[in-house]
Amino acid sequence: MERNCTASCEEIVRNKQVILREHVRGFPREADMEVRDGSVKLKVEDGSSGAMWVKNLYLSCEPKTRHLMKTIRPGSPITGFGVARVVDSANPKFKKGDLVWGITGWEEYSLIASSETFFKIEHTDVPLSYYNGILGMPGLSAYVGFFELCSPKKGESVYISTAAGGVGQLVGQFAKLLGCYVVGSAGSQEKVELLKNKFGFDEAFNYKEEADLDAALKRYFPEGIDIYFENVGGKMLDAVLLNMKNRGRIAACGMTSQYNLEQPEGIHNLMNLILKQVRMEGFLVSSYYHLYPKFLETVLPHIKQGKITYVEDIVEGLENAPAALVGLFSSHNVGKRVIVVSRE
Amino acid sequence: MERNCTASCEEIVRNKQVILREHVRGFPREADMEVRDGSVKLKVEDGSSGAMWVKNLYLSCEPKTRHLMKTIRPGSPITGFGVARVVDSANPKFKKGDLVWGITGWEEYSLIASSETFFKIEHTDVPLSYYNGILGMPGLSAYVGFFELCSPKKGESVYISTAAGGVGQLVGQFAKLLGCYVVGSAGSQEKVELLKNKFGFDEAFNYKEEADLDAALKRYFPEGIDIYFENVGGKMLDAVLLNMKNRGRIAACGMTSQYNLEQPEGIHNLMNLILKQVRMEGFLVSSYYHLYPKFLETVLPHIKQGKITYVEDIVEGLENAPAALVGLFSSHNVGKRVIVVSRE
Repeated sequence: MERNCTASCEEIVRNKQVILREHVRGFPREADMEVRDGSVKLKVEDGSSGAMWVKNLYLSCEPKTRHLMKTIRPGSPITGFGVARVVDSANPKFKKGDLVWGITGWEEYSLIASSETFFKIEHTDVPLSYYNGILGMPGLSAYVGFFELCSPKKGESVYISTAAGGVGQLVGQFAKLLGCYVVGSAGSQEKVELLKNKFGFDEAFNYKEEADLDAALKRYFPEGIDIYFENVGGKMLDAVLLNMKNRGRIAACGMTSQYNLEQPEGIHNLMNLILKQVRMEGFLVSSYYHLYPKFLETVLPHIKQGKITYVEDIVEGLENAPAALVGLFSSHNVGKRVIVVSRE
Repeated sequence: MERNCTASCEEIVRNKQVILREHVRGFPREADMEVRDGSVKLKVEDGSSGAMWVKNLYLSCEPKTRHLMKTIRPGSPITGFGVARVVDSANPKFKKGDLVWGITGWEEYSLIASSETFFKIEHTDVPLSYYNGILGMPGLSAYVGFFELCSPKKGESVYISTAAGGVGQLVGQFAKLLGCYVVGSAGSQEKVELLKNKFGFDEAFNYKEEADLDAALKRYFPEGIDIYFENVGGKMLDAVLLNMKNRGRIAACGMTSQYNLEQPEGIHNLMNLILKQVRMEGFLVSSYYHLYPKFLETVLPHIKQGKITYVEDIVEGLENAPAALVGLFSSHNVGKRVIVVSRE
């Protein structure tokens, strides 16, 4: 195998990292993480078959990052999806200079031991950061959860929680393109406006201003909900269960409201799954990588024709990543939050 | 239309009834019901198109009866599935003398206004009471929940709660016939023996003797559960969610443990639907009546060849029906509980 490495691979460079200090309990705080400078030699060791060094460009900052933190060893960098450029590779699938996206570290450079989760970026006529969002896992999650799990039909009523987030905004636009009635909820008036005016949702509401979620859902869905795209869990799920139509479908993508709790909230209305014959299905997008090419084929033309739009919340600099993550849980971001490590 | 009525149709007869006194809160008590004698004229009034009078023979006594009581008007008889003989009919589908099963009243004679839920009994070379159980709604529920919703495969691990009940015993036998590993739980040692020795379950346990349901399930399913046939809800469901395998399936048929509660218990482990990519689907057997002929075709030969067996818990006399219903919730019955009103 040819090694795509030059003298520059061997240079020792600074590697700024966001390190997990200790296991987080409850809501993450900035103090749970430390931004630290290290140094690395950007050369894959001989014999490290399949490994590669990448320079991280854009990192995805999302509620699931908090969930993943449960599995990170203290002293190690936070992990998550990112867009990167290969700087040295012993992996036959990728060569130096390739743009890729996959699971990387919150640091300037990452040694990728397993490239199973990595995709080469072929289309660069869209913003590269999109591969953290609409063209990455959030996009594929929206596609799989909505089309594969919910079998949506024109005219059906669709409800999306965390609708202005990286997944939700796309689910809503898919549903509108199909001819569904679409309502989303979010945590600020600004996001509600975005849902209605930018993404074309039929209705949207700020769940924080609703004392009675059941009443709010009955206002927007007097005849019930056919499809619920579940991103939050907890009280919202309980209220939704009271409002599902017969033969409704729930795609469970995430349960954001529960990630910071020691003991998850109890859900009391599951009997409605029986009374309304509802199907609720959880999924992990990693089981659907095989659909990625089909998904890209569907979504790229829509983006290029302006039929689907995407809002990002850009945070500049790795040193601001801890605050960016913490802020997610107080709805600070508007749109898909992305951390820019480097633009090239 | 020819009316199959003779002089005898017009006779006035005693009609013993089990009347709901008032809306039940919590566990049903015998005092919530009253056995009362009335009298009726067994003749369908002229112009009552589609109506028929039936003589009730066998009534089904099941946990769902409690659930249905929430919709019965105080002063009316308890309703539920039963096997009956037509004594007068203005319904073209049924004639005098036909044996039928469907939703009837807890009384000696019922006027059936709508025969939508009624099936004519064609095969009488099996016990007629079976049409309340293995050949009726419980049987169809087992068939639909297991085969239609769970797409079972040979070798999969199947767990059934309330396994000795009218539905559970059949699900377990279907699963064994398919070549699955089958474990059931029930509320007494006697039932546990029945599951293992009569129905051929691989394992069975008394849930009342398990302080830690999660540990009990891990003992019987060290590698997890592929299919859970849900009859109870509550704490059992929460423990099962911790033990599902990836891509597991849950058919939600009932939530017996919750029917008597004012506020259902909270389920805390739904995040496992996502982590394990589990599909949970509720169903009402009434939506699957179209599968009844196919179901009969499947199950009748098995019964006649002795490959499937069925245990009934026979209660003699309508006057004992209130105690029979109350006893269900303290696991008094062994097998499918049937109330004999009359044998002919």
